[in-house]
Amino acid sequence: MSYEVKSLNEECGVFGVWGHTDASRVTYFGLHSLQHRGQEGAGIVSNDGGRLLGYRNLGLLSEVFSDDRTIGKLSGDGAIGHVRYATAGNGSVDNIQPFLFDFYDGQVALAHNGNLTNAKSLREELERNGAIFHSNSDTEILMHLIRRSHKDTFREQLKEALNEVKGGFAYLLMTKDSMIAALDPNGFRPLSIGQMKNGAYVVASETCALDSVGADFVQFVKPGELVYINDEGITIENYTDDVMPAICSMEYIYFARPDSNIAGVNVHTARKNMGRALARETYIDADMVIGVPNSSLSAASGYAEESGIPYELGLVKNQYVARTFIQPTKELREQGVRMKLSAVRGVVEGKKIIMVDDSIVRGTTSGRIVRLLKEAGAKEVHVRIASPPLKYPCFYGIDIQSRHELIAANHSIEEIRQYIGADSLSFLSVDGVVDSVGLDYDAPYGGLCMAYFTGDFPTPLYDYEEEYQKSLEETTKFF
Amino acid sequence: MSYEVKSLNEECGVFGVWGHTDASRVTYFGLHSLQHRGQEGAGIVSNDGGRLLGYRNLGLLSEVFSDDRTIGKLSGDGAIGHVRYATAGNGSVDNIQPFLFDFYDGQVALAHNGNLTNAKSLREELERNGAIFHSNSDTEILMHLIRRSHKDTFREQLKEALNEVKGGFAYLLMTKDSMIAALDPNGFRPLSIGQMKNGAYVVASETCALDSVGADFVQFVKPGELVYINDEGITIENYTDDVMPAICSMEYIYFARPDSNIAGVNVHTARKNMGRALARETYIDADMVIGVPNSSLSAASGYAEESGIPYELGLVKNQYVARTFIQPTKELREQGVRMKLSAVRGVVEGKKIIMVDDSIVRGTTSGRIVRLLKEAGAKEVHVRIASPPLKYPCFYGIDIQSRHELIAANHSIEEIRQYIGADSLSFLSVDGVVDSVGLDYDAPYGGLCMAYFTGDFPTPLYDYEEEYQKSLEETTKFF
Amino acid sequence: MSYEVKSLNEECGVFGVWGHTDASRVTYFGLHSLQHRGQEGAGIVSNDGGRLLGYRNLGLLSEVFSDDRTIGKLSGDGAIGHVRYATAGNGSVDNIQPFLFDFYDGQVALAHNGNLTNAKSLREELERNGAIFHSNSDTEILMHLIRRSHKDTFREQLKEALNEVKGGFAYLLMTKDSMIAALDPNGFRPLSIGQMKNGAYVVASETCALDSVGADFVQFVKPGELVYINDEGITIENYTDDVMPAICSMEYIYFARPDSNIAGVNVHTARKNMGRALARETYIDADMVIGVPNSSLSAASGYAEESGIPYELGLVKNQYVARTFIQPTKELREQGVRMKLSAVRGVVEGKKIIMVDDSIVRGTTSGRIVRLLKEAGAKEVHVRIASPPLKYPCFYGIDIQSRHELIAANHSIEEIRQYIGADSLSFLSVDGVVDSVGLDYDAPYGGLCMAYFTGDFPTPLYDYEEEYQKSLEETTKFF
Amino acid sequence: MSYEVKSLNEECGVFGVWGHTDASRVTYFGLHSLQHRGQEGAGIVSNDGGRLLGYRNLGLLSEVFSDDRTIGKLSGDGAIGHVRYATAGNGSVDNIQPFLFDFYDGQVALAHNGNLTNAKSLREELERNGAIFHSNSDTEILMHLIRRSHKDTFREQLKEALNEVKGGFAYLLMTKDSMIAALDPNGFRPLSIGQMKNGAYVVASETCALDSVGADFVQFVKPGELVYINDEGITIENYTDDVMPAICSMEYIYFARPDSNIAGVNVHTARKNMGRALARETYIDADMVIGVPNSSLSAASGYAEESGIPYELGLVKNQYVARTFIQPTKELREQGVRMKLSAVRGVVEGKKIIMVDDSIVRGTTSGRIVRLLKEAGAKEVHVRIASPPLKYPCFYGIDIQSRHELIAANHSIEEIRQYIGADSLSFLSVDGVVDSVGLDYDAPYGGLCMAYFTGDFPTPLYDYEEEYQKSLEETTKFF
Repeated sequence: MSYEVKSLNEECGVFGVWGHTDASRVTYFGLHSLQHRGQEGAGIVSNDGGRLLGYRNLGLLSEVFSDDRTIGKLSGDGAIGHVRYATAGNGSVDNIQPFLFDFYDGQVALAHNGNLTNAKSLREELERNGAIFHSNSDTEILMHLIRRSHKDTFREQLKEALNEVKGGFAYLLMTKDSMIAALDPNGFRPLSIGQMKNGAYVVASETCALDSVGADFVQFVKPGELVYINDEGITIENYTDDVMPAICSMEYIYFARPDSNIAGVNVHTARKNMGRALARETYIDADMVIGVPNSSLSAASGYAEESGIPYELGLVKNQYVARTFIQPTKELREQGVRMKLSAVRGVVEGKKIIMVDDSIVRGTTSGRIVRLLKEAGAKEVHVRIASPPLKYPCFYGIDIQSRHELIAANHSIEEIRQYIGADSLSFLSVDGVVDSVGLDYDAPYGGLCMAYFTGDFPTPLYDYEEEYQKSLEETTKFF
Repeated sequence: MSYEVKSLNEECGVFGVWGHTDASRVTYFGLHSLQHRGQEGAGIVSNDGGRLLGYRNLGLLSEVFSDDRTIGKLSGDGAIGHVRYATAGNGSVDNIQPFLFDFYDGQVALAHNGNLTNAKSLREELERNGAIFHSNSDTEILMHLIRRSHKDTFREQLKEALNEVKGGFAYLLMTKDSMIAALDPNGFRPLSIGQMKNGAYVVASETCALDSVGADFVQFVKPGELVYINDEGITIENYTDDVMPAICSMEYIYFARPDSNIAGVNVHTARKNMGRALARETYIDADMVIGVPNSSLSAASGYAEESGIPYELGLVKNQYVARTFIQPTKELREQGVRMKLSAVRGVVEGKKIIMVDDSIVRGTTSGRIVRLLKEAGAKEVHVRIASPPLKYPCFYGIDIQSRHELIAANHSIEEIRQYIGADSLSFLSVDGVVDSVGLDYDAPYGGLCMAYFTGDFPTPLYDYEEEYQKSLEETTKFF
Repeated sequence: MSYEVKSLNEECGVFGVWGHTDASRVTYFGLHSLQHRGQEGAGIVSNDGGRLLGYRNLGLLSEVFSDDRTIGKLSGDGAIGHVRYATAGNGSVDNIQPFLFDFYDGQVALAHNGNLTNAKSLREELERNGAIFHSNSDTEILMHLIRRSHKDTFREQLKEALNEVKGGFAYLLMTKDSMIAALDPNGFRPLSIGQMKNGAYVVASETCALDSVGADFVQFVKPGELVYINDEGITIENYTDDVMPAICSMEYIYFARPDSNIAGVNVHTARKNMGRALARETYIDADMVIGVPNSSLSAASGYAEESGIPYELGLVKNQYVARTFIQPTKELREQGVRMKLSAVRGVVEGKKIIMVDDSIVRGTTSGRIVRLLKEAGAKEVHVRIASPPLKYPCFYGIDIQSRHELIAANHSIEEIRQYIGADSLSFLSVDGVVDSVGLDYDAPYGGLCMAYFTGDFPTPLYDYEEEYQKSLEETTKFF
Repeated sequence: MSYEVKSLNEECGVFGVWGHTDASRVTYFGLHSLQHRGQEGAGIVSNDGGRLLGYRNLGLLSEVFSDDRTIGKLSGDGAIGHVRYATAGNGSVDNIQPFLFDFYDGQVALAHNGNLTNAKSLREELERNGAIFHSNSDTEILMHLIRRSHKDTFREQLKEALNEVKGGFAYLLMTKDSMIAALDPNGFRPLSIGQMKNGAYVVASETCALDSVGADFVQFVKPGELVYINDEGITIENYTDDVMPAICSMEYIYFARPDSNIAGVNVHTARKNMGRALARETYIDADMVIGVPNSSLSAASGYAEESGIPYELGLVKNQYVARTFIQPTKELREQGVRMKLSAVRGVVEGKKIIMVDDSIVRGTTSGRIVRLLKEAGAKEVHVRIASPPLKYPCFYGIDIQSRHELIAANHSIEEIRQYIGADSLSFLSVDGVVDSVGLDYDAPYGGLCMAYFTGDFPTPLYDYEEEYQKSLEETTKFF
């Protein structure tokens, strides 16, 4: 089973290794298993005896590093890398990370997964004081704060800077003699530490990247922690004590790879549990359960097992769809030309179907799939969503920019059902998600961030507050 | 669920349409859903008012036609296209089809899926009489035979030529005023006819291509049939009466897309039936059933349902693996670096596992997966193969060149089990395959070609006979 | 001084070497100095112990062989190569040479510079007898004739075939054990033999290619000769005795590189002589002589020396103009935006100028340059052309397709003068060309082909006769 | 005649236009004629109604803007562009200009030709105060100085910054409502103003770029001037009064295009004068004068005219040599394989030759050419250099990094003669250059910078002083 990316995008994945003679190549393979976290661009910075060497470009990792030469130049025993998520516009190489800064007194490389909530005001204040930014990303801000700190050591400067930035972030840095990771005080984004057979330390956004390079899992990075790795070993300290776990629930629901563990919970298992809970909450009799490939297959198989209804292959995804630039014209689409998903007529014809999906954003994809199934002869299509209705935007690193894009923020469930053409439509409850994941931190929702569903943001919104409040007063009709 | 290609390769897929104003674009989308049948190269020839226009190149379809310009030049109401399978060497554009021939008295385009058994002797005879070939493919032979025929019409010349070539073939041709398809007398390769909403006729290797362009299924092309389509409509005739159905069983087992139907049987359903039969034939108690992604997932879910053992996601496939040129060094592989498949530790650790795969060719992949599962903590791995041991080569269009590459032709099942490191190993029986597919032609094996498993070749082997007989006397030890 | 290509195009250059361990690389450098003879595509076939290996593609030589890998694969001690001239349409790789033919009984590679006059009728006759052609070029014809010959040896078959093709040709072939060159009975196209320091034989279209690979000049290939080179050495024989030298005068006037010698005459020297003769025939008093870069600089300096008028740099050519795809819009051109040639205002302003060019085809380029000089302040521009008026097409390998494209075939000299806006216009006489080159074969014009100027074609025109006769009766007004 | 680039490299060319609806395309054509000033990379920033849009990349201009799409996106009525010179290492797109800065309070684009002498100390001081640089180029420094200025307007901030940077610079900037140019107080680098037919103002490094876009020459930018262009028109002011003309003599000798004028003097004419002066200073009897293509052809023709010795084409340059990645191996070079220059045997054989070149840097190229001529049979080769011996580095924008690379800084003329294998060797005198150019500013050498020959640097060397002084004490033996 493979996995894919759809209209919800996350900002990036990071990977680093310290103490391996082939560090940049190890980083390549680590990033390779994080490619689902970002397809816009990729980069690696290596540390060759204290000198940092970098390469980054637009494209998939395999396009950026298309032969051994480029990666061969990134020699050294340490390396950090980054994959950046795909956005529509602004496809400039300037935003591809890791950033590599050259100062008269040394070099620093910096990579970032997340989104700051006070970036705009920090940036404006810095610019008023003469700072020049070279990208549109939030990431540079941390570097400016570090360089303007009056603390004595880089480590102290970094800790000071970390206390100034707000929001969601997993940072990975490299200096001439260290690799450093830091996680925001809520731990929105996942970050893990592993160790290779030869003792080299690895830091990665997801544990699947540890597995892919043959590293043993050591521990998760916890909210507010600073991880400092150098030739002496590893030290972990808190740069702040004002922490409160709020791990992004969408990582479990949709983003992370099913073979990753986050905070000790396997993602596939969490999804299967959500499918089981969904079956309990929204049972309906049917001929078969089908999942929308690929992210919903775990939940669908959970639904099937819990309900006792057979799990079938009703939809097939064309694996060659990526990077295809020729799209059907409107006319051809109306004539039924399809590129990505096919309904299996031989399986679904004349059948009453439960179609399990992980979430509904705008509703257009769900509507298209229901139509596909009906055109292939399905008698009834009952849509079951393995998460609650998405009603609120995210400011910590997931690309839901506004409530206006979310159908559930603007329409009732019955309206959505009609819009997507389903015979029935149900969502999993908030408790259903929380129990299925099963974290038990002493924090709201057991330590999950459920803000997309509940509006309970774990932090102040800073620069976004005003815009957000205004958006609550408006509705956008989708049809 | 998506699908993939592994070490067994088939020779090509064809698609054509007659009577659509956007014929080459329709052909693009049709070929797109046949991409799994060939990744080495692709081409399209269109018919613009009697003038044939072509483009072909090495690479995936989306690489060959990377923007609208190239396809935009292939104007006209008719088009045929081809995707060619990947081979190691000989990556010359000269072999990419459709071939487009310019004669003083007209143009002809020709595409071919299959393999001729008397190609070598025909070619040598033609060359002795002055013929010049420009590719290494069998395909050109038909054209030489046509041009040297003394019949009056192109259609009669073609029929004469079709009676001279032997083996497996699905031909698709285009002249200035017609599109023509022909299938070999055994019907080894699948070929179907569909019709678009506007009446345009479509011919395709698999029915999934009909679905992808919104065409309704009309009928399968039967062994020995010649399909003639022009502006008057469609006519079907037999170019020979000496027919005997022997449909390639590997299409059901591994090659075809699960959403295709062949000879009226859905491929996913056939595979699920094979999984069920496998469970009945080779039951063993276990904690879970897992399938090797992606082609074995149907069989695995059949096994799970029949056995009552839960179906789990124990293996995850990296979807970005295609076209990645940087591979782990031997040293990194030994350190556990993996690119393609990951075992889900959280699922398989400490468990007794039934691993279902569709077939074993050399045994190396199966061995690697078993090792992967054991390294992730699986207690026991019982391998179940949803087809019989592969013992004989294919001469009709599947790229199994010799018995020396087939572990089951050279080793006992127990030896294979040891080689791949499984706790037990069983295969589906020949009857299990035949019953699961369920064809009932008045022909051996109900009309399936089972030669890979039984050595019962449905035709004389012509140019291959001598080499084949010699190969039966030799064994190659794999370890 | 460098050289360039303008609207007259020649068909190709050939180069081959036999007996050098780095044969394909030597061929690369040889072809590199023949690049001016063809920019559409290039290819090389090498001979590695009897096995022929080839690569060809569209583009400049440096694009086709853009790294050492491709050329590195063409191992072996012998190699032949080809550069193909640029045409507007039909940019198919199928026409790029050398052609490499695989037969059951061996391989043959074939490259060709020239144009056959009976290609159309030969091809139609061959097709009527079942032959299939794979390119639009004349070149394939020779191979079909060879394969259909009933002679015993390849050499005898080739000689028979050479007696059937008519027109202008310099062929270069390679078999498993020989390299063979052949020149048409009139010797229209240049072809030379050289020898490298290690004894390896080299054959090339121009002697500049011998110089570029460090080979010593051995001899020119003469009309009707067949040159046979193998490990035993070199033998030269006549495949026909019906010969009559008619060396293309345009090679001296425009095409060939100034450092090449043809039939013992240095091209720069011939051009300088033409400039001197032009000064004697068309003297006018002026402030300076300028040449149109780059092909007219030799003639211009000859004119200056003979006339005693200073030679100045009045025009500068932008060397980066090749392969620039963005062109000025009509509007920008009208506003004076120029890409290719600049007039040097500081030199020409207020001056009476003699502008020497090698030839006038359509007159548009000359008109543009006169305008350029006048806009830069030139007081008078007197155009002197170092060849007679071009009035007739060429059928032996130069791309002047018809009389309709030639301004001098359709207008008087005074009309042309007005059209190009010159203050006066004169051409060199036919005798002026003949004497400047100074060949003294016992043949019309001393052995030069002057047909473009006189209509005295040295051979029957075969397939072109009818069209040519018709064209003589028609005139096309250019303005 | 075309021109070329050799081992002396200059830092860049700039071009800008204000008030033309097709501004970026005009800039493209302007830059096209400045391509000889930099081949490493190119970029353009346009101004579309106050919004700045940019694109830049590595490669030739025609590679960076390879189709109309990229340039089509750079809409607007104003644009500035830049071509960057080729260096061996550090080929990062981060250094390609114009730089485009986004601030919360507006955008600024900046391009730069030249080299600062106090860049290192300014940069270090800025970094100590928190500044972050993103490139290795000097260019960013100006922007940091502007942003940290406490003046009220951008114009005043810029003037303050211009008084802080030292060395050679021609800056071109664009803001939302203006295009601004500034030249250093010595006027090292050339910069000119023109006006298009529609009134649009143009600023360019060389006047050939004005010609190429059909603009009339308005005036040269003088040392210490700031040129301010907006929709109101053009204003020119001095940002400093501490000026002293020291125009780079190497622009006349080698860098600039022969059709450009600098400070009122045509470059070709200056070179021809240098050739004439060289003939007077170093006359020797010979059979012919030849120039090394392409930059020495003007001087060579001057030498020929002054001496009365015929000017001949003894060397031919292969125009296709650019961007060729396959180079002769050492072995092939020893066997005489040549790619770039050919000696014309038919011209030089047995002759006594005067070979005119513009300068000698390391001596290797001159030695190679002498050898080439002798191998082609030249009896004697007398080398005449149309400039004095190069003995000192440049710190104002020409890429002569150190005295160690200059043969004349380390060896006597007789030693050089022996090294290059010439029969005699002479250089033009310092006065010969000064008189040939003929500037008459009230400044040393009439306003020319002759430091490369005399060591008389027109300014303090700041950050380079120490290194320079040390270099004076050392010698490097070349052989």
